[in-house]
Amino acid sequence: ITKVDMTIGDLEKGDFEHFMLKEIFEQPKTIEDTFRGRINPEHTEIVLGGLLDVLPKILKARRIIIIGCGTSWHAALVGEYLIEEYARIPVEVEYASEFRYRNPILNSEDVVIAISQSGETADTLAALRMAKERGATILGVCNVVGSSIARETDGGVYTHAGVEIGVASTKAFTAQVTIMTLFALKLAKENGRISSGLYLDLIKELSEIPEKVKSILVKHPHIKEVAAKYKDAINALYLGRGALFPVALEGALKLKEISYIHAEGYAAGEMKHGPIALVDDNLPVIVVAAKDHYYEKIVSNIQEVKARKGNIIAVVTEGDTGLTSMVNDLFEIPKSHPAVSPLLAIIPLQLFSYYIAVMRGCDVDQPRNLAKSVTVE
Amino acid sequence: ITKVDMTIGDLEKGDFEHFMLKEIFEQPKTIEDTFRGRINPEHTEIVLGGLLDVLPKILKARRIIIIGCGTSWHAALVGEYLIEEYARIPVEVEYASEFRYRNPILNSEDVVIAISQSGETADTLAALRMAKERGATILGVCNVVGSSIARETDGGVYTHAGVEIGVASTKAFTAQVTIMTLFALKLAKENGRISSGLYLDLIKELSEIPEKVKSILVKHPHIKEVAAKYKDAINALYLGRGALFPVALEGALKLKEISYIHAEGYAAGEMKHGPIALVDDNLPVIVVAAKDHYYEKIVSNIQEVKARKGNIIAVVTEGDTGLTSMVNDLFEIPKSHPAVSPLLAIIPLQLFSYYIAVMRGCDVDQPRNLAKSVTVE
Repeated sequence: ITKVDMTIGDLEKGDFEHFMLKEIFEQPKTIEDTFRGRINPEHTEIVLGGLLDVLPKILKARRIIIIGCGTSWHAALVGEYLIEEYARIPVEVEYASEFRYRNPILNSEDVVIAISQSGETADTLAALRMAKERGATILGVCNVVGSSIARETDGGVYTHAGVEIGVASTKAFTAQVTIMTLFALKLAKENGRISSGLYLDLIKELSEIPEKVKSILVKHPHIKEVAAKYKDAINALYLGRGALFPVALEGALKLKEISYIHAEGYAAGEMKHGPIALVDDNLPVIVVAAKDHYYEKIVSNIQEVKARKGNIIAVVTEGDTGLTSMVNDLFEIPKSHPAVSPLLAIIPLQLFSYYIAVMRGCDVDQPRNLAKSVTVE
Repeated sequence: ITKVDMTIGDLEKGDFEHFMLKEIFEQPKTIEDTFRGRINPEHTEIVLGGLLDVLPKILKARRIIIIGCGTSWHAALVGEYLIEEYARIPVEVEYASEFRYRNPILNSEDVVIAISQSGETADTLAALRMAKERGATILGVCNVVGSSIARETDGGVYTHAGVEIGVASTKAFTAQVTIMTLFALKLAKENGRISSGLYLDLIKELSEIPEKVKSILVKHPHIKEVAAKYKDAINALYLGRGALFPVALEGALKLKEISYIHAEGYAAGEMKHGPIALVDDNLPVIVVAAKDHYYEKIVSNIQEVKARKGNIIAVVTEGDTGLTSMVNDLFEIPKSHPAVSPLLAIIPLQLFSYYIAVMRGCDVDQPRNLAKSVTVE
């Protein structure tokens, strides 16, 4: 018998119309729950207990392969950016469903990390077992305690997002990204590839995320107003660069899952190699344009879309007035270091999808054709 | 002065209504031109002269990174499957636009290959220069002789596709995939990771591709008929697995580029993690389902789409009658080894896009918003 650590309140919607909305609003708490106890009170050390035994192996890894499906695959992509940028270890991200049926190049020098909310995703579990057979060190990042992936791995870290009921993942995603951030910083500190100053800054930045998420959530009436303008869209394009490219993918997936609008995410630099042909005055283009070192490039992408009369909704950093005249609608997020901005930039996109789906009369918590955990192939 | 090796006939459409159609029909010849002279008459040896000096470095590479944009990025993904499968060297594929602005982990043990039809793609060229600065061995796979990428690399291989005028790449893509196939087999032979029997079989399979492409092209009236049924589609989903996943991406890109239908490619195993929510009786789902070791998995994807009343068009291996009752329409391709099937499976999808775009009255050779070579960022 496994004791389940939750109260009945966790399974009730309370004042929220849907579980998904409740879960979106829980994120200041779930992100904090995920890093609390893992950052010491002085904000100087990251402790990931479940990785203690395998840390030397991870630090010597030839490469780290992160596998996942759907939303977890997007969290993996954020992880790739952060680990490569700060810890300087090569990372490869793969769809679990592709990885398991190939004959991947793996040996005991490799570390394979599986990300799965349920810890039961069939393809991810099968991929992990294959990696284990080939001698790789296997790790899990799961939300459900005691799940198959958590039990079968050599180590891992739980996301502490609590029970997620909405089929479209929200708080589990930000918890996964929080773990990826802690993991990248931990590795970078251990192998000495990050300066002490930057390391401390980034821990501080992460600790400020819950308050910043709150400040985005209170703007939900504005996001709802914008959603009303685009609720009848047939298609949508989401663009981002760097660690915000996976945020664009995840934003598009949310809209697709619950509103059935065909939304597609793209690396913004790829736009001119095809998707720009779709742009006309009917197409909403959502651009994740927070201030970072890609900012000028994303501004020129916005100008290109604008020149073709696309409707642009931009996620921007507070106080960035430069884009106001160029875009149709703005979602502001607080200023933050680019390493943690994925945790902020996704919030307005979750709400945007939610409101559109509700206005279209869709069953937000139980979208058609989808299951919460894909435990069969 | 650079002498350009072509006749005026290359720049004329001849009996074809559009350059794109001419270029699709040229593929039996362009694929043959690309491997001819590189496979000896006995079909026992692959000679890639432009790689001779750097071959030892490639064989010792810690990893091979292939960069590209748009269609070239899809050819890179096919290359990844083939090189990892047969030569057992880890490969990472990156968008040139992402790679260049990150701080990628590169050193003199890495080999970076740029794929670009024009050899002038701005992001790809910039990415390559950065890789060179960091000490990596850099190689080019270009179509235009004497182009910037061809000049600046340590070695490379030309695709011999001839001048490509249509903005949507067709014959350049199959030439790039042909090079990736030769390259993977060459590496596998040199490092002894492929059996002699399989190596000879695959060279033979490749040499048979031009005739097999011809046999697909003659079925163009059937493909046109099917296209007429779907010409008014608003969206489309393309699914594939393994080396046929990039074919699904490329098929979707063709439709998007020239018909402005929002087509999206997905790894078929990812379908249940989101895109299946889009499936209803309006959505055409194009499934690349040639016989290979993924076949049974793709059949169950087809069944799932069918259960949700999606309209299925399947690319299948000739004689595969098992799918007839499950799908709405079939494009048959000749039986071949899975290693070379991407070269066949893309052909009906090119024609399908072409006919749909023509029926919609689109400017096939000059689609809106797109340039042939993206020589600015």
